Amino acid sequence: MKLSNYFLPVLKETPADAEIISHKFMLRAGMISQSSSGIYSWLPLGLRVLKKIENIVREEQNAAGVNEILMPTIQPADIWKESGRYDDYGKEMLRINDRQDREMLYGPTNEEQVADIFRRSIKSYKELPSLLYHIQWKFRDELRPRFGVMRGREFLMKDAYSFDLDEDTSRVSYNKFFVCYLKTFERLGLRAIPIAAETGPIGGDMSHEFVIISETGESDIFYDKRILDLLDVDQELDYTKDLRSIVSSYQALYAAADDKYSKDEFEKKVPIEFQNNSKGIEVGHIFNFSTKYSEPMKANVLNSNGKAVSVHMGSYGIGISRLVGAIIEASHDENGIIWPEAVAPFTVGLVNLKSRDTEAIAVCENIYNTLNQAGIEVLYDDKDDSPGAKFSRMDLIGLPKQIIFGNNSLKDQMIEIKDRKTSHTEKVKISDLAGKLITSK
Amino acid sequence: MKLSNYFLPVLKETPADAEIISHKFMLRAGMISQSSSGIYSWLPLGLRVLKKIENIVREEQNAAGVNEILMPTIQPADIWKESGRYDDYGKEMLRINDRQDREMLYGPTNEEQVADIFRRSIKSYKELPSLLYHIQWKFRDELRPRFGVMRGREFLMKDAYSFDLDEDTSRVSYNKFFVCYLKTFERLGLRAIPIAAETGPIGGDMSHEFVIISETGESDIFYDKRILDLLDVDQELDYTKDLRSIVSSYQALYAAADDKYSKDEFEKKVPIEFQNNSKGIEVGHIFNFSTKYSEPMKANVLNSNGKAVSVHMGSYGIGISRLVGAIIEASHDENGIIWPEAVAPFTVGLVNLKSRDTEAIAVCENIYNTLNQAGIEVLYDDKDDSPGAKFSRMDLIGLPKQIIFGNNSLKDQMIEIKDRKTSHTEKVKISDLAGKLITSK
Repeated sequence: MKLSNYFLPVLKETPADAEIISHKFMLRAGMISQSSSGIYSWLPLGLRVLKKIENIVREEQNAAGVNEILMPTIQPADIWKESGRYDDYGKEMLRINDRQDREMLYGPTNEEQVADIFRRSIKSYKELPSLLYHIQWKFRDELRPRFGVMRGREFLMKDAYSFDLDEDTSRVSYNKFFVCYLKTFERLGLRAIPIAAETGPIGGDMSHEFVIISETGESDIFYDKRILDLLDVDQELDYTKDLRSIVSSYQALYAAADDKYSKDEFEKKVPIEFQNNSKGIEVGHIFNFSTKYSEPMKANVLNSNGKAVSVHMGSYGIGISRLVGAIIEASHDENGIIWPEAVAPFTVGLVNLKSRDTEAIAVCENIYNTLNQAGIEVLYDDKDDSPGAKFSRMDLIGLPKQIIFGNNSLKDQMIEIKDRKTSHTEKVKISDLAGKLITSK
Repeated sequence: MKLSNYFLPVLKETPADAEIISHKFMLRAGMISQSSSGIYSWLPLGLRVLKKIENIVREEQNAAGVNEILMPTIQPADIWKESGRYDDYGKEMLRINDRQDREMLYGPTNEEQVADIFRRSIKSYKELPSLLYHIQWKFRDELRPRFGVMRGREFLMKDAYSFDLDEDTSRVSYNKFFVCYLKTFERLGLRAIPIAAETGPIGGDMSHEFVIISETGESDIFYDKRILDLLDVDQELDYTKDLRSIVSSYQALYAAADDKYSKDEFEKKVPIEFQNNSKGIEVGHIFNFSTKYSEPMKANVLNSNGKAVSVHMGSYGIGISRLVGAIIEASHDENGIIWPEAVAPFTVGLVNLKSRDTEAIAVCENIYNTLNQAGIEVLYDDKDDSPGAKFSRMDLIGLPKQIIFGNNSLKDQMIEIKDRKTSHTEKVKISDLAGKLITSK
């Protein structure tokens, strides 16, 4: 993509109402534009990141054998009355009357909607387990939306739902998502820690939040450092196998957020050299709620004795738009964003500092075409701006690699590659560039 | 994908309230599930088709140099008050008050929202033209939603917007979309006819609807048959070149819907052997509305004299969810859907008629893996159903090719390939199958 054709309205000043770093950088880097309080338009650069995260999440859901569906944003109130949540859910639910004065709502979550699909479609235990997910915009009418996409009103989530015959089989599904989430966050360039979470009246141990470490996190977490070394990234996951041992290895190590933290337990269970305490941002939540919704909504199957039984359900969420902000919170410096390669909007920024020189333009065009043909995603800054403006814009938008075509590049046929994260630079021959970038991938 | 792991709730009976063929088949084939009047959940098979259409539309928008953004579904009423449309837009607009009692609405279209993004971002004529599109769910609160996804309330659209300095340059943008739409529909396996449409008080000739021929279409269209032969599918389009000649070649031939049709003109302009009259379904609309929204909303740029001028805008829509229904209307028989290959949910259906025979299962698994590795999308019917049930389900869901592993397949190592559209069958050696399917692609 050439910057001269790209819609990238970078801001020089930080907007006054942005309180946290990700919100500031997303506005300044032209990733989002506010529509109204807590509601944003995604501009091209931001949308590319959102789509990359979405695709990684999708690939890992598919790998775990979950079927993708897409439920609508507007739901009928009836199904929420069936489950009993219509009155309980407070003012965060955006309630709407349509022109026929039917009660509708903008879905804040989808347990009722998916249970309705399930009960219309599945009748026998033989068709279980059934695992469904969707990636859709949701709405929670926060009283004080803030922190940009970290706590917006309209937000993108992946939510998945499992349907099983009984508690034992629902644990198999639960473990699939547990492991799938570890893999997903790893691929996103994040280290996520699963933390035992509240189960309320449902009880049991099937509720975990996935939290990433960040100074600006909303909660305090206390954990055994060794938990960060458990996941073997390159491990091939076979979801048809028993995954209990992986899940148990996490459950064996202490990790708790402030709401469940006990100082005594922490100090007793974790050797002092492994005790760690940081701020964390919640990016995922998995929860088995047994027959809480299936019972009132009559989401039944016939079991092997021909008897109708309520299915056991679980739900599994990842905040996709929230992750864009969370990744920035976890990965930036004073000059801007530092994207992990997997979610970077482009891998390489090609900067032509001699943008009025026809010979330099020709060489840069050539580099640009070569990189594109090699399948490397390039944003080519072909604009006629000062070097200072070009450098600070490139640092702000945070592409992993910068390629600088400078004052001497024509003469010595060398070009500079700068790593955004380490600031390490090296000079390479222009003719070696594509090969260099491909092997370093 | 194996059918035993796939969420495909096929219905035997046609739901009573489905009036048209696409609605019937989409429900029966387990593509959608109704949530409430005019609002549907997309089940895995339907979602795959929706995504394929979406991706083709996206690729062609990108090829034309249009930048993808994503605007929210919920918009503030303020911008609609600025443009003057808030009161004009009738009850089809879903109006919402949030918890702070601010007036909001579920976007039925996005001229105001995109003009707001534009005016915050672009200040100079040097940054024009600016072409933006997004693919997002919209809502129109139809009084009588009907015909399934053809006239639903919550629907997916691609809408694009152009911003230009004056009428001449806005025509260049208009022509880009005109040609891009021809290419897009062609890739979707459709022949779309551009028909001059109403421009109302704005006047001029920059308004066209794109209509596909279908017996069940909502409007009568009268056209010169030769229009169907104009587009050269394989033509490489260069959007930096002047596209007027392509557009003119269409405008030179008569094509009108009933609202603009004149019998005298039709008979005068079209030799009798080329006169044609059919039913049509609108699937796209392009329209230049000059400064209608930019003027009241102050979407200005500074021109080369440093004077602020209102930009000329156009909007360009394709009904993506509607296209799923439209394609079925245009391509089916009494047994079910016949997908054009480009949008088929899977290219091949592999049917094992000996699903209890372990040797047959092993061979079919092998075929399934081979085809997957060759990059061919396969739905493998590994279920333990009767041959009749398997055949009728496969015909209903309409995959372009069926591969039948039958009673003699083990013995003679031959398999039958059936073309869903022509019903032509041929027997091929199992060992030749992948090669055969790849070359016929």
